[in-house]
Amino acid sequence: MARRLIPCLNRVLVEKIIPPSKTTAGILLPEKASKLNSGKVVAVGPGIFDKTGNKIPVGVKEGDTVLLPEYGGTEVKLGDKEYHLFRDEDILGTLHD
Amino acid sequence: MARRLIPCLNRVLVEKIIPPSKTTAGILLPEKASKLNSGKVVAVGPGIFDKTGNKIPVGVKEGDTVLLPEYGGTEVKLGDKEYHLFRDEDILGTLHD
Amino acid sequence: MARRLIPCLNRVLVEKIIPPSKTTAGILLPEKASKLNSGKVVAVGPGIFDKTGNKIPVGVKEGDTVLLPEYGGTEVKLGDKEYHLFRDEDILGTLHD
Amino acid sequence: MARRLIPCLNRVLVEKIIPPSKTTAGILLPEKASKLNSGKVVAVGPGIFDKTGNKIPVGVKEGDTVLLPEYGGTEVKLGDKEYHLFRDEDILGTLHD
Amino acid sequence: MARRLIPCLNRVLVEKIIPPSKTTAGILLPEKASKLNSGKVVAVGPGIFDKTGNKIPVGVKEGDTVLLPEYGGTEVKLGDKEYHLFRDEDILGTLHD
Amino acid sequence: MARRLIPCLNRVLVEKIIPPSKTTAGILLPEKASKLNSGKVVAVGPGIFDKTGNKIPVGVKEGDTVLLPEYGGTEVKLGDKEYHLFRDEDILGTLHD
Amino acid sequence: MARRLIPCLNRVLVEKIIPPSKTTAGILLPEKASKLNSGKVVAVGPGIFDKTGNKIPVGVKEGDTVLLPEYGGTEVKLGDKEYHLFRDEDILGTLHD
Repeated sequence: MARRLIPCLNRVLVEKIIPPSKTTAGILLPEKASKLNSGKVVAVGPGIFDKTGNKIPVGVKEGDTVLLPEYGGTEVKLGDKEYHLFRDEDILGTLHD
Repeated sequence: MARRLIPCLNRVLVEKIIPPSKTTAGILLPEKASKLNSGKVVAVGPGIFDKTGNKIPVGVKEGDTVLLPEYGGTEVKLGDKEYHLFRDEDILGTLHD
Repeated sequence: MARRLIPCLNRVLVEKIIPPSKTTAGILLPEKASKLNSGKVVAVGPGIFDKTGNKIPVGVKEGDTVLLPEYGGTEVKLGDKEYHLFRDEDILGTLHD
Repeated sequence: MARRLIPCLNRVLVEKIIPPSKTTAGILLPEKASKLNSGKVVAVGPGIFDKTGNKIPVGVKEGDTVLLPEYGGTEVKLGDKEYHLFRDEDILGTLHD
Repeated sequence: MARRLIPCLNRVLVEKIIPPSKTTAGILLPEKASKLNSGKVVAVGPGIFDKTGNKIPVGVKEGDTVLLPEYGGTEVKLGDKEYHLFRDEDILGTLHD
Repeated sequence: MARRLIPCLNRVLVEKIIPPSKTTAGILLPEKASKLNSGKVVAVGPGIFDKTGNKIPVGVKEGDTVLLPEYGGTEVKLGDKEYHLFRDEDILGTLHD
Repeated sequence: MARRLIPCLNRVLVEKIIPPSKTTAGILLPEKASKLNSGKVVAVGPGIFDKTGNKIPVGVKEGDTVLLPEYGGTEVKLGDKEYHLFRDEDILGTLHD
């Protein structure tokens, strides 16, 4: 029943990373430490056309860890999982270890 | 009496898929499980012109199963059936099994 | 006294089709059955110029049966008849039997 | 004392046609019959430039009888007469007998 | 102490013409007769660039008598005199005897 | 401690000229006489790109005396002095003796 | 745990410079002296595409000291440090000693 979604235009499908509210040892983390709103890119659209008919590719790719805006995005439920759709231009950046 | 509609510009005619509120065995499904707002593309317009006179084709095609935004779209009744018209750019993505 | 109107730019002159509220046998139709807001195209403008000076032709033509938006359009009375002017981009689609 | 006005850009100077409220025989006309808001084009501007520097000519010309929008336009008094200035794109169409 | 102002971009410096409220014989003119809001062009800017880098010249020139919109414009005081700055596109037309 | 600011894009750094409220002889000037809101251009940005990638230079230059809009601009304090940043297009004109 | 963020499009990651509220000798500084809202550029995005498909590079670079607008920017916490993301066009200027 798990369906696959291919986003339209410059949309990006993201699975949000829920930050742990406790450490692995069970200690409660203060709210501040879990502030970063990030997600994993699951699928990207083909991009949009510019004013002269050229396609502008989406700036992030499948597998990227991205920094998301605090608000916005469209909630999508596929099978059991919850995802969010964002426009390419609303993704703030990519995160790297 | 069932008339056919050819959408103008980049409009897309969609027949919404009403998610079953019971399983085939008659068990009532919780509201959450039926959240996905999807539809079948019935007809697409020819597309719009960009600023230099080139036609931008519509990103979805007849027969596609599409993910629709929660709000928006224009209700259209053709014969006995209810359809919705969406602008190409408002369709969130295509669904694949 | 019946004057002819040639619409400017991408405007389209439409004569609305008033759906019968009774069948030919005199049976009152329920409100739902008469929902479709359609019209006959009577005249079309020459189109507008795009940003590089090319004229974009109007997407519908005289004689087309068109699906109209529920709101909008400018009422025009020519002789005894009532018409409506719509911008090309506001016409939802063309209807075919 | 009657001064002449040459409109700037895509403006059009129009003398409104006041519909008679009585027939020539003196019979009062119902309000509905005098609904058409029309005018005579007295002068037109040189047109505006498009985004690539080409001048787009004004779509109506001196002497045209035009259909005007119900609201809008700038009242101008030249000598004893009252005129209205409209932007080219606000003129709905040209009227022909 | 009378300084000279060269307007930026497509701005136009105008000295408003205050219509006489009395005739030269001292007879008070009715308000209606003095309605025309006009001015003398004192200086014009170099124009603005279009989207492809070409300069669009200002449509009016020094010495022109122009018809001004009822509202808008920026009041400027140079020496003892009061002027108004308008954007090129806000000037309605040029007046000729 | 006096730092130098190079404005970004089409921004212009201006030091406002505070009009004297008294004459050199100590006579108080009426409010009307000090109305002109002007400044000295201290630094200009490199300009912005137009839609086709060409840089549009800023219309004013260092040392120019400029006429400023009554409102707007961003207050900046560098060392002991107060400056204002304006967008190129908000500067009304240049003043010359 | 200190993760690195590469901003998308024309975004700029900035570490704000908190102005000292006391001098090194311990004397409290008046509020006015600490007014300048500046930051250090930590990372810049690749830039955005213009309307004809050319990439417009970001106007500031890593290591630049920049003047920031009083409001705006998105707070981002990476590891222990707090950063702010700004759009290229919102950065007011670069500061130089």
